[in-house]
Amino acid sequence: MATAIESDISKGTTNKRQPAKPVRVAVAGASGYAGGELLRLLARHPFARLAHLASSGRDGKSASPIERVHPALRGQTGLDCQPLRLDDFSPSRMDFVFLATPHETSAELAPALLARGLRVVDLSGAFRLKDSEAYPRWYGFEHHAIPSLEQAVYGLTELNADEVQKARLVANPGCYATSSILALAPLLRAGWIDVAAGIVCDSKSGASGAGRSPNQKLHFPEVNENCRAYSPFGHRHVPEILQALELEEKKFTFTPHLLPVTRGILSTIYVRLALPRALDEVVSLFKDFYARAQLVRVYGDGALPEIQSVAHTNYADIGFAADRAEGATRLIVVSAIDNLGKGAAGQAIQNMNLMCGYAEETALA
Amino acid sequence: MATAIESDISKGTTNKRQPAKPVRVAVAGASGYAGGELLRLLARHPFARLAHLASSGRDGKSASPIERVHPALRGQTGLDCQPLRLDDFSPSRMDFVFLATPHETSAELAPALLARGLRVVDLSGAFRLKDSEAYPRWYGFEHHAIPSLEQAVYGLTELNADEVQKARLVANPGCYATSSILALAPLLRAGWIDVAAGIVCDSKSGASGAGRSPNQKLHFPEVNENCRAYSPFGHRHVPEILQALELEEKKFTFTPHLLPVTRGILSTIYVRLALPRALDEVVSLFKDFYARAQLVRVYGDGALPEIQSVAHTNYADIGFAADRAEGATRLIVVSAIDNLGKGAAGQAIQNMNLMCGYAEETALA
Amino acid sequence: MATAIESDISKGTTNKRQPAKPVRVAVAGASGYAGGELLRLLARHPFARLAHLASSGRDGKSASPIERVHPALRGQTGLDCQPLRLDDFSPSRMDFVFLATPHETSAELAPALLARGLRVVDLSGAFRLKDSEAYPRWYGFEHHAIPSLEQAVYGLTELNADEVQKARLVANPGCYATSSILALAPLLRAGWIDVAAGIVCDSKSGASGAGRSPNQKLHFPEVNENCRAYSPFGHRHVPEILQALELEEKKFTFTPHLLPVTRGILSTIYVRLALPRALDEVVSLFKDFYARAQLVRVYGDGALPEIQSVAHTNYADIGFAADRAEGATRLIVVSAIDNLGKGAAGQAIQNMNLMCGYAEETALA
Amino acid sequence: MATAIESDISKGTTNKRQPAKPVRVAVAGASGYAGGELLRLLARHPFARLAHLASSGRDGKSASPIERVHPALRGQTGLDCQPLRLDDFSPSRMDFVFLATPHETSAELAPALLARGLRVVDLSGAFRLKDSEAYPRWYGFEHHAIPSLEQAVYGLTELNADEVQKARLVANPGCYATSSILALAPLLRAGWIDVAAGIVCDSKSGASGAGRSPNQKLHFPEVNENCRAYSPFGHRHVPEILQALELEEKKFTFTPHLLPVTRGILSTIYVRLALPRALDEVVSLFKDFYARAQLVRVYGDGALPEIQSVAHTNYADIGFAADRAEGATRLIVVSAIDNLGKGAAGQAIQNMNLMCGYAEETALA
Repeated sequence: MATAIESDISKGTTNKRQPAKPVRVAVAGASGYAGGELLRLLARHPFARLAHLASSGRDGKSASPIERVHPALRGQTGLDCQPLRLDDFSPSRMDFVFLATPHETSAELAPALLARGLRVVDLSGAFRLKDSEAYPRWYGFEHHAIPSLEQAVYGLTELNADEVQKARLVANPGCYATSSILALAPLLRAGWIDVAAGIVCDSKSGASGAGRSPNQKLHFPEVNENCRAYSPFGHRHVPEILQALELEEKKFTFTPHLLPVTRGILSTIYVRLALPRALDEVVSLFKDFYARAQLVRVYGDGALPEIQSVAHTNYADIGFAADRAEGATRLIVVSAIDNLGKGAAGQAIQNMNLMCGYAEETALA
Repeated sequence: MATAIESDISKGTTNKRQPAKPVRVAVAGASGYAGGELLRLLARHPFARLAHLASSGRDGKSASPIERVHPALRGQTGLDCQPLRLDDFSPSRMDFVFLATPHETSAELAPALLARGLRVVDLSGAFRLKDSEAYPRWYGFEHHAIPSLEQAVYGLTELNADEVQKARLVANPGCYATSSILALAPLLRAGWIDVAAGIVCDSKSGASGAGRSPNQKLHFPEVNENCRAYSPFGHRHVPEILQALELEEKKFTFTPHLLPVTRGILSTIYVRLALPRALDEVVSLFKDFYARAQLVRVYGDGALPEIQSVAHTNYADIGFAADRAEGATRLIVVSAIDNLGKGAAGQAIQNMNLMCGYAEETALA
Repeated sequence: MATAIESDISKGTTNKRQPAKPVRVAVAGASGYAGGELLRLLARHPFARLAHLASSGRDGKSASPIERVHPALRGQTGLDCQPLRLDDFSPSRMDFVFLATPHETSAELAPALLARGLRVVDLSGAFRLKDSEAYPRWYGFEHHAIPSLEQAVYGLTELNADEVQKARLVANPGCYATSSILALAPLLRAGWIDVAAGIVCDSKSGASGAGRSPNQKLHFPEVNENCRAYSPFGHRHVPEILQALELEEKKFTFTPHLLPVTRGILSTIYVRLALPRALDEVVSLFKDFYARAQLVRVYGDGALPEIQSVAHTNYADIGFAADRAEGATRLIVVSAIDNLGKGAAGQAIQNMNLMCGYAEETALA
Repeated sequence: MATAIESDISKGTTNKRQPAKPVRVAVAGASGYAGGELLRLLARHPFARLAHLASSGRDGKSASPIERVHPALRGQTGLDCQPLRLDDFSPSRMDFVFLATPHETSAELAPALLARGLRVVDLSGAFRLKDSEAYPRWYGFEHHAIPSLEQAVYGLTELNADEVQKARLVANPGCYATSSILALAPLLRAGWIDVAAGIVCDSKSGASGAGRSPNQKLHFPEVNENCRAYSPFGHRHVPEILQALELEEKKFTFTPHLLPVTRGILSTIYVRLALPRALDEVVSLFKDFYARAQLVRVYGDGALPEIQSVAHTNYADIGFAADRAEGATRLIVVSAIDNLGKGAAGQAIQNMNLMCGYAEETALA
């Protein structure tokens, strides 16, 4: 259990690292699911002050009361959702901007916001890949904001905390990527995996991960009472996984699936160990690796994470099964996150917390 | 239980009423949910031969393999889905047309098809209201096919079997209307309801009732883990209910709700009885009323129908609860149908069966 | 929008009414859904300190790590769940007890806890009905704790705030009752309803409202893709609704329905107005009535609450539809709550907040 | 498309292979989900006559009207569900028995039924494993019906049609096993898989696969909005898969998952090819292998089967994805079945059809 002091920190009432100076925050792309979750979390963040909401999603012309955009947030924000206009973003009104905008919109907006001295967490894929030449293949557009791309820090907090703290632009990881990387990084960095044998990651995601724009594939009766694989060998979160884990494409097989749930990702990851390991050793490796991570829960009791373990939270839960308890060579790592929490908005706020010097888990635990 | 002979009839192997002459059938609007259900049912109809499929729903330009339109029907129809062109409908190729098209499209197509000598069951609302002047208010368009409107038979099979048999154009009832009318007709025709006290019908429908076109309100995460009332005092199935039951608008309060299920309608209907009645009397009234209806199941054991009682069937199930077993004055009638079965495609085929002289329940029970 | 100060209150960082003295809290019945939600909320309550968890639900013999009981709470409570033993509840360890226990267990435990000087919020029905003789009919047991029953305050916070503040035993209202009473109290107290015409309340609830014990009716495939009415004219929340609203049983028809969702209640309530009223008047009546209620949201824009408007919150949302905007006589009131939030655990904490002098909405908004 | 004659066969109106002699059928274990699905299918089987229904599931003492057992089957069977008594099974009343009973019950009943001259399809696991010594490990009981075990034919129709036709006892395959074996048999028998590299089968199943007995893990709120892996390296369908595919346990990694849907299994299977193959070659291999199988649909258009492709049908659908179209070495095979259809009751009837000389797909397509 958290000590009383840690508990107070996570509730946001005190902060040992530095006095809590409020931060003025804007959200661009407020009308989507990640945008809505950002607002919900910011509304209970003790140090964040919501300064501006914008969206190009509705008619794009006039302000909308927040309850038209997110019925559940009626009365929660005190602000209407404005049309998205770059001019509205200024250091006189805000310190910090979350971009929950489409990839190309983010690629355009971020450099302009940085130039004005604002700090940015971008939830799109626009700044995740170091190699700008990968964008046409994976995202379908040419990237022109090379300096921002170079400056961007990949915001998987648990791996990059030091860089994130100093960053001006954080590329918030993809939901599938978060789920996969957290489950594999300790094993790969320790060299325990027989990479030549290949790694299989079978991921299952709730439908909110596909965004809020209506389309045939996400129409209720098409998703309900269904489950389907999609984008085999071609999902756009693959390159950021390869980049973060320093893997070759041919060694990593990733298949996303759509689940008839709203929130959550469950990844079942199959690896072959280079040497037989006891399951306890694996648990210890992960517990050590994530010793300082407040929002990763490593299961040491043989249980496996489920989507319900983490839905509506910012936790990443990781558990294990092996072909035998001692001397395992076939290992299954199961990780679960909420795609809108640790997979998007929650992680974005976790990054903001670090960037602003707040406790990592403020408003999240 | 059905006798062996009845059972054979319902399985379609024999037909006592008349020798089963095959019917060649076309479906316009094949790409929607009602269209797909029609195809599924027709594929196992012993006397129907599918002659033509058409849809304006996809690109509208080229034929689509059926599995692109309805993945579950892969290999089932032997026909591609063609663009919707009036010229393709001709008595040389077919005898019968199902229109599962938008209201205005049906209003245009039906007269032309009738003129060519084809018989038509229209699943839209285009021919349900006898009063053509009601169309602008309830359906948002001016009705110009007055002769067809006058000729159309309202195809609630259980109430209008004789007329349906002779009809050339049947207006297949709305799903909510079917659910409401079947539950109220016996009581109203017997004069048992205190109509002055008002009737409340609280209906709950699965999302397939709203059609297959993507829109924000039917996006998976908006429907899932949700339930909402909509169109209070204004749903377009109200006028056909009033017409069929000869009720004044102010005496009938109807509220539809959207359920996070794909198929099914449950209507909970609240009436006040003019005189106290034993629950047994109510059951008898309904059993007598529906004595010849093969596809209405009246519950006499105190159970209440559920959506699962009827999903994926063509049954309309009706049950009762009262404020006391003897001398009830407050009565609740609960009816359940599958909105795509008895509420749409199944009922359309039931109508076709009557029109073609087949047993009513052929391919449906 | 809340002012900055109100916002800080609701986030729990300050409290203008009185300095926030921590409260030590125990939860009996921690293994059920309401118990789990209490723990989740208490974990982020700035002034509550969890002192003891107990449950008779598991083997009843040994302590269980919390993650065995509620996988999502892994690492959240710092306490194991103990077997339920009266001896463990003592003022030396705690100030306050939540009973999320079965009705009869609560009826036995509460007097003993009160006798030890502990304050109690009971989430069962054991202390909701003033008339002890009603218990055999509605709850199936004879009530023997008459003094506690007399002392108990019905904890519908919005109606009874003053009494709740001083109470030592609060009977937390039923979920359906909360949903119904909040939607009807303003109209009934104003005398606007034609009560003689009868009131119909058609309520729809998520399955968590039926508790966590496995049974056939709540087995996943029986609830999924289904909706059913149950307990017509006989649900045990009816008597507390009649008591709170001072209605006769024959004037109030209540039908609960089971929805295939986990959380939430939507009530569609049909009333006849004694005199025609403009919809705006109705909105004003409710806004005035709930002017000081932080957790009731009255909709004045014609929208209707949905389950998603309130799921995972403690809000009660209320909206309206009428047969005409001016001079309405048929009025529909739609209310939505989360059955585990405002309908159970959230409301219990709201009551605790008042009893302890904290801002009503602490840890809830 | 099926020709007209094939179509008639599948509708059951004629049978070219032999004149259709009716079969009298009993179902033991009628109260479970597989039992209910058997009844639903038998009710529309043109040659089956339901002779007896029995279940030990309810009170086990008196007959139950079928609607108490399966609400959807009200009026469908003409028979009550009787307590399960061996004496009721006799060749004077029936020819054929489906056992949808627990494993141990089946192990006891089958030999007795065979001794009476009845033919049996057993849907449990009692006769699937050739090695009687495997039962204690995988099923938790000692198998004593060795002669029946030796006599039993593994009823995966597509692989064993000839043996099934002559069998007196058919062991109907497990749902996961059906899904896995059909997807792998063509590749393994052709020797195309690099077995040494290991095969990973990640399967996702609807909750009806876990049976109808209530338990905590299948309680609605525990399954809804959730997905979880279970029984890693230990599911009891593994040994029948290994047996049918002649694989070593260490070469086959199988992880079942529970989906929040009622029906359907989706298996995503990862194999490494021994030699690079074009995707077209793979499709051809499967099309040839299943050329005579009426109920397997091989996808040659790049689409992948979904649960909705097969729910409420008896089809097994199989599709493919590869790391490249030409020269693929990493291949994903996706298979989908309805766990109650092809995975249980449908396949049982498919076996009965063969055993009785009816067209394989009678009542199923």
